[in-house]
Amino acid sequence: MPKLDFDVITMGHGSGGLLTQRLLQSGVFDLLKNEHLDQQHDGALVDLSGKVAFSTDSYVISPIFFPGGNIGELAVNGSVNDLSMCGAIPRYLSLAFILEEGLRMEEFWEVLVSIQQASLRAGITIVTGDTKVVEKGKGDKIFINTSGVGMLHPRAQISWQAVKPGDKIIVSGNIATHGMAIMSRRKGLEFETTIESDTAPLNHLVKAILDEAGQDVHFLRDPTRGGVATVMNELASISKLGIDLRQTEIPVDDQVMGACEMLGLDPLYVANEGIFLAVVDPAAADRVLDIMKNDEMGNRARFIGEVTSAHSGQVVLQSAIGGRRVVNYLTGDQLPRIC
Amino acid sequence: MPKLDFDVITMGHGSGGLLTQRLLQSGVFDLLKNEHLDQQHDGALVDLSGKVAFSTDSYVISPIFFPGGNIGELAVNGSVNDLSMCGAIPRYLSLAFILEEGLRMEEFWEVLVSIQQASLRAGITIVTGDTKVVEKGKGDKIFINTSGVGMLHPRAQISWQAVKPGDKIIVSGNIATHGMAIMSRRKGLEFETTIESDTAPLNHLVKAILDEAGQDVHFLRDPTRGGVATVMNELASISKLGIDLRQTEIPVDDQVMGACEMLGLDPLYVANEGIFLAVVDPAAADRVLDIMKNDEMGNRARFIGEVTSAHSGQVVLQSAIGGRRVVNYLTGDQLPRIC
Repeated sequence: MPKLDFDVITMGHGSGGLLTQRLLQSGVFDLLKNEHLDQQHDGALVDLSGKVAFSTDSYVISPIFFPGGNIGELAVNGSVNDLSMCGAIPRYLSLAFILEEGLRMEEFWEVLVSIQQASLRAGITIVTGDTKVVEKGKGDKIFINTSGVGMLHPRAQISWQAVKPGDKIIVSGNIATHGMAIMSRRKGLEFETTIESDTAPLNHLVKAILDEAGQDVHFLRDPTRGGVATVMNELASISKLGIDLRQTEIPVDDQVMGACEMLGLDPLYVANEGIFLAVVDPAAADRVLDIMKNDEMGNRARFIGEVTSAHSGQVVLQSAIGGRRVVNYLTGDQLPRIC
Repeated sequence: MPKLDFDVITMGHGSGGLLTQRLLQSGVFDLLKNEHLDQQHDGALVDLSGKVAFSTDSYVISPIFFPGGNIGELAVNGSVNDLSMCGAIPRYLSLAFILEEGLRMEEFWEVLVSIQQASLRAGITIVTGDTKVVEKGKGDKIFINTSGVGMLHPRAQISWQAVKPGDKIIVSGNIATHGMAIMSRRKGLEFETTIESDTAPLNHLVKAILDEAGQDVHFLRDPTRGGVATVMNELASISKLGIDLRQTEIPVDDQVMGACEMLGLDPLYVANEGIFLAVVDPAAADRVLDIMKNDEMGNRARFIGEVTSAHSGQVVLQSAIGGRRVVNYLTGDQLPRIC
């Protein structure tokens, strides 16, 4: 961290005046330096053409530092992944902070460094930003919004309308890891574990899949809040198709499963960050699975089910002991502020 | 407001599960309906090509309802104006909420309706969104982030590098109005006034100016947080040019001036929402002023000063009584959470 003449964020740092300038010039601009940010205007000019994907997400995760990451890289990876799930190549991100008065500059700096590193890893550029400060007790340390733009992959045709009976459902890795990593550090709930969040950028792997399988990839989604069960229910509802899942095929780390059992949580509803679900034409499914298995981000990928014309709008799970049950939407909030 | 089976926002509305679905389908999607939102994906696909402007801003204004508007229209107009100041034609906005648990649905609905109306007025489309909920006491009713994209106006060449000595500085309307409207409703500070926020979309007027004057418009900026003094200081600092302002030419409403005097505030530092500063080549300055004066958004426009090669990096004000003083950056935060 650079040497600063202040230790904590004050209301003045959100004034737009001298203290805001000092905060940004204390090293923030240097850290995230690029030709766009150098203009220091209200917005950035970037080159894009054709079909452009545009996404937004706010991050309110608590605690802001957790095993395996912090809110900074989560905010970068999250928007990179949202764009990837649209079949786009993420290019530019915006970065907007709502800081709580009294935030320690040291913590903010650690988040900023992690944002820089995540940007490099994902290959995106942060081109425009905003910083607001709210009074102590009117926020919670740091909230971040990232919005992103990227070019649609030339071979991508991702939409729920493309999904059809017989399509294979692939998950790219172990489920429920991020959610349980956060839970292990929640106030009043702490438990001993070495589980780490799986937060990661998925854009490189998604690009490889689209390069190979193109329009045979019908649907992509990262199962964040609400987990795999929620994404599958959304797809079933909107497409009016059915979804069959096989519990024995859904990969869950042993420690994560143990923690879920201890807390009485179903891993299907637990939030993820570094995995995605792909719904793929059967003709291309094996090739897609192979690409995933050969990639660091997808080496635990598995077929976990199929789309069906039966039980329209419903997700049905064949359990490990052979029974079948409907997997509904989550009611209430199992794990608040998980992202 | 549609009939709902809930009156307040709960943590479950941010779960990504059934309650989130119910909240969005309670009328929110219908209100903001368009082909992009109908896809209900993690991002939206839009058509853009060439030079694209991209901006972001979070809104944490308190109170969320104020004379002349609310946080919803402020968030739409704010990003529309950020894009306009880049010389772009705003097209698409993202919309991300951080709601505080316990927020009354009636208040949220009023904000949503105002977002819809502001979108229509500005002629932009909200294409993607996000909703998070934080516990009571960890937020403050509603924070909104809007990010925006738009096409660069074909004749626009806005940048501080284009600014040169002799350029005329125009303000499009009365200054300090928004800030004083908010202050009049601040807890512990309430005073009787009919001052209303000037929040408004500036894109139509900016387009008219660029259609006419093109690259003779060197710089545009809306003086929000920190007011006219801050924007002028930023321009002086980055361009290493001087700026001369004439106090007698800077338009301030009588009531606003009275309120500023009562509170000991300098209107030059007070936040604005519906006005902008244009730095224009002298050859085109009269034409630009005429266009502004003939537009509802700019009918109080005035020349307020010039760019100079003297006093590099400094803003100098010639006061009403003939003296000259340096106008510095604001230190501290005069009016926290003004946008």
